[in-house]
Amino acid sequence: MYTAADWPIAAKMAFPAAEAVADASGEAGKLTGHRRCTCSSPVSVWRQQLKSVADMGYRYIDPIDDWLHLPELSDDLFAEFKKLLDEFGLSVWAVSFGRRSPMDRQRWRENIAAYKRTIDRAEALQLRVVNIGFMQDLTPEQQRAQWFWHVDGYRDDPALRDVALERVADVAQYAQRRGVEISLELYEDTFLGSGKMAAKFVQDLGAKNVGINPDVGNLIRLHREIEPWEESFEYVLPYANYWHIKNYVRDFDPATGAYYSFPAALEDGYINYRWVIYRALELGYQGAFMTEHYGGDWLGIGARNARYIRSVVRSYESLVAAQSADGMAAKCAAGIGK
Amino acid sequence: MYTAADWPIAAKMAFPAAEAVADASGEAGKLTGHRRCTCSSPVSVWRQQLKSVADMGYRYIDPIDDWLHLPELSDDLFAEFKKLLDEFGLSVWAVSFGRRSPMDRQRWRENIAAYKRTIDRAEALQLRVVNIGFMQDLTPEQQRAQWFWHVDGYRDDPALRDVALERVADVAQYAQRRGVEISLELYEDTFLGSGKMAAKFVQDLGAKNVGINPDVGNLIRLHREIEPWEESFEYVLPYANYWHIKNYVRDFDPATGAYYSFPAALEDGYINYRWVIYRALELGYQGAFMTEHYGGDWLGIGARNARYIRSVVRSYESLVAAQSADGMAAKCAAGIGK
Amino acid sequence: MYTAADWPIAAKMAFPAAEAVADASGEAGKLTGHRRCTCSSPVSVWRQQLKSVADMGYRYIDPIDDWLHLPELSDDLFAEFKKLLDEFGLSVWAVSFGRRSPMDRQRWRENIAAYKRTIDRAEALQLRVVNIGFMQDLTPEQQRAQWFWHVDGYRDDPALRDVALERVADVAQYAQRRGVEISLELYEDTFLGSGKMAAKFVQDLGAKNVGINPDVGNLIRLHREIEPWEESFEYVLPYANYWHIKNYVRDFDPATGAYYSFPAALEDGYINYRWVIYRALELGYQGAFMTEHYGGDWLGIGARNARYIRSVVRSYESLVAAQSADGMAAKCAAGIGK
Repeated sequence: MYTAADWPIAAKMAFPAAEAVADASGEAGKLTGHRRCTCSSPVSVWRQQLKSVADMGYRYIDPIDDWLHLPELSDDLFAEFKKLLDEFGLSVWAVSFGRRSPMDRQRWRENIAAYKRTIDRAEALQLRVVNIGFMQDLTPEQQRAQWFWHVDGYRDDPALRDVALERVADVAQYAQRRGVEISLELYEDTFLGSGKMAAKFVQDLGAKNVGINPDVGNLIRLHREIEPWEESFEYVLPYANYWHIKNYVRDFDPATGAYYSFPAALEDGYINYRWVIYRALELGYQGAFMTEHYGGDWLGIGARNARYIRSVVRSYESLVAAQSADGMAAKCAAGIGK
Repeated sequence: MYTAADWPIAAKMAFPAAEAVADASGEAGKLTGHRRCTCSSPVSVWRQQLKSVADMGYRYIDPIDDWLHLPELSDDLFAEFKKLLDEFGLSVWAVSFGRRSPMDRQRWRENIAAYKRTIDRAEALQLRVVNIGFMQDLTPEQQRAQWFWHVDGYRDDPALRDVALERVADVAQYAQRRGVEISLELYEDTFLGSGKMAAKFVQDLGAKNVGINPDVGNLIRLHREIEPWEESFEYVLPYANYWHIKNYVRDFDPATGAYYSFPAALEDGYINYRWVIYRALELGYQGAFMTEHYGGDWLGIGARNARYIRSVVRSYESLVAAQSADGMAAKCAAGIGK
Repeated sequence: MYTAADWPIAAKMAFPAAEAVADASGEAGKLTGHRRCTCSSPVSVWRQQLKSVADMGYRYIDPIDDWLHLPELSDDLFAEFKKLLDEFGLSVWAVSFGRRSPMDRQRWRENIAAYKRTIDRAEALQLRVVNIGFMQDLTPEQQRAQWFWHVDGYRDDPALRDVALERVADVAQYAQRRGVEISLELYEDTFLGSGKMAAKFVQDLGAKNVGINPDVGNLIRLHREIEPWEESFEYVLPYANYWHIKNYVRDFDPATGAYYSFPAALEDGYINYRWVIYRALELGYQGAFMTEHYGGDWLGIGARNARYIRSVVRSYESLVAAQSADGMAAKCAAGIGK
């Protein structure tokens, strides 16, 4: 049981990938539109970047695949990477894959192989969770937009849902034998395109080491009608085992039909995360948080969000401690404010 | 005279109403669209909720009527409620009625009776102010919207203004005999639909125990042209005796006619509250603040806003202390930044 | 070399001008639409305003010309002003001119004379930089808008660019002889209308005491397509010698074409200032910051921004200290988050 003080909260490594690493790992960099670093050596780049997050108070990182291609990393570089983690007191609780879908028409075999090679390194990293999803490469229109979520992107084909279930089941089985969990990320227009769809997918899968990453932030930023966030969370929180947590402000102008959204700190955005975190804890959530933030000072906001998460967990602990006899209901104690 | 350290700043109890309380109080819950709590007993729910706000540093609450129907509460539950307040070191400076207009066609008698029964409990609660207004139930369209202020709602009929004055005068007289003040809340499309209208209403009323709740936040969130906030405040601050204080960001796109607004912390939104609070203090404001915030973590933002209010009052005190000879003008010391 | 602790960060004096000062200085107040103060004496007003910023932790101010007309100030008032600065421990690192273009058809001679008289007072004030630009008076449409940047304003005539270069060269030469630098402010639709244009202007000028004020905030708030902020900064940071630093949130709705922007704290807005400040320091930036913020509590947000700037400089120092052998690249250590 984690407490407010030691709950694992990971920085998303939203840094550019080191060029040498990109070279070593083939397509890295190209996948995401990230500018590559032109610094001297990958180790030197990692040192700066890991020191950056350690300086901000993080004790965990998520080495997401557009920053570091763990599966393709040579044993030597992997050893260097682990040494750096130790040097800065950083751990890896989960690794996320961003846009490497097991349904990618060209690269699905390659992507699944990448998950598996990452799972192979789980023991060395003391990794608990590998996060995957069905989102695919950004389209050229998405890359040109101010934010990629302004433009509709890749869509899963409903006719292939059984194939998707099969492929995830294969990965899950592989992970299960190595003591690793899989987390499936909510993402619009995929098989996990809403809370309802994601819950159904996991139910249909029926694998005990597969859960959901309730990344409802992916949905509330969209310039279209969406599933109400309270409902999204009610569907998926019972299955949550890892959490890309982020918030946005969001408005709609009925007279013109214009939508507006913008990345906001957890406390400031549309989703009431005090309520949502209380509710998750009430349901027994024991996974890590990964602070994700697009736009602006993602590292500064991430560190602020990490402090916020701890303060909310602390509030919850205080309420539970005082309420031992009756139990408590997150909805009553945190409310929804409207 | 309050100081920065002891100025009464109340939490709006924006929690769901306890179901048992809702049952006891008839229409509670239905009025506001609030989900009801399904916790064990009202006292157990209140305990969690009061502890929540006390933990955030509040020493006052506003038990607004969509959380607690004070007038309908049995004597036993009222005694339990007061005991809980004491337990958590919380006081009630004012009670707000949300959508219980004295002009409601069906329920106006019932609503006025509810004000009066609340006033009857003023002494037991050491209550100073009862906040009322002319807003009425949300329409179905308002309930379906992302925010209820996206859609035009109830409008007062100008032909009935004299009736409104009469009914408020009756309540005011009742309150006056019991040492209670009435605060009238600014709200669009009612008799108090702008700063100008609200000031005129109170002038025409001429009751010395009736003031204004300068809740200009109700106006600046609207997706339409509004009275400039500086003017709204200039009209109503001289009459202010209670304050639902909140802020929003607000923009307008001239090319398309789209409006945008979103709830923001006091320091971050469109209204310069440093200036407004300085100006209120300069005019002798001695009422409480009630931190209201829609959307997101209303409790977290509320607590942040409470700290902000104290820091602004402290700045004002520091300026006044240094300026004893000359007096000072809020406009000069806080400015408007554009 | 400044450090995080002593880096000069100035408050923009976004207060109303004292009326007496306005009277003494002719057109003051009228130029900007600022309401004038009606307090007893300019010195009494300044005292309140300077105490306000000192109380917020500032040690520098920028007495921008719509607050104080330094060039027109009598010797007596100037002496009083300097006494007040000393009393509150405040210094002037730079003076900004807002809308006094050297290309103004009517007043260009007068404006250039004002720069020069300010430069004459540089020694007495220990002033390093005078900030000027080509923006001119707001149009009536701009004054009526919610924000002046909603509406297109004055535009420089490309045919007169050589004249502009000549006039700035004349001012630069005058400043050079008195050890003062000139900073040219980025502003839309002027000769410095983008990062690219500003860099070209300074290159063509070729005066070693003329640099750029990389006020990209002026651009990102516009309701139109803009130069990507990363590019703007890459063009101008090598020439930066003073910095009106501010941020905005910004979104665009592709379906309707609606733009949205709103002033935000440095950490919260669209520009990643962690990255930008790292990059500026990497390029050797040694100028002051001036915290500018429109809308809301500009003074409170300004003070928050000042603390943010120091924290980012401190992070950079920590990275540099650890990286002595390899050097570092700002892009690697701060990333861009998308």
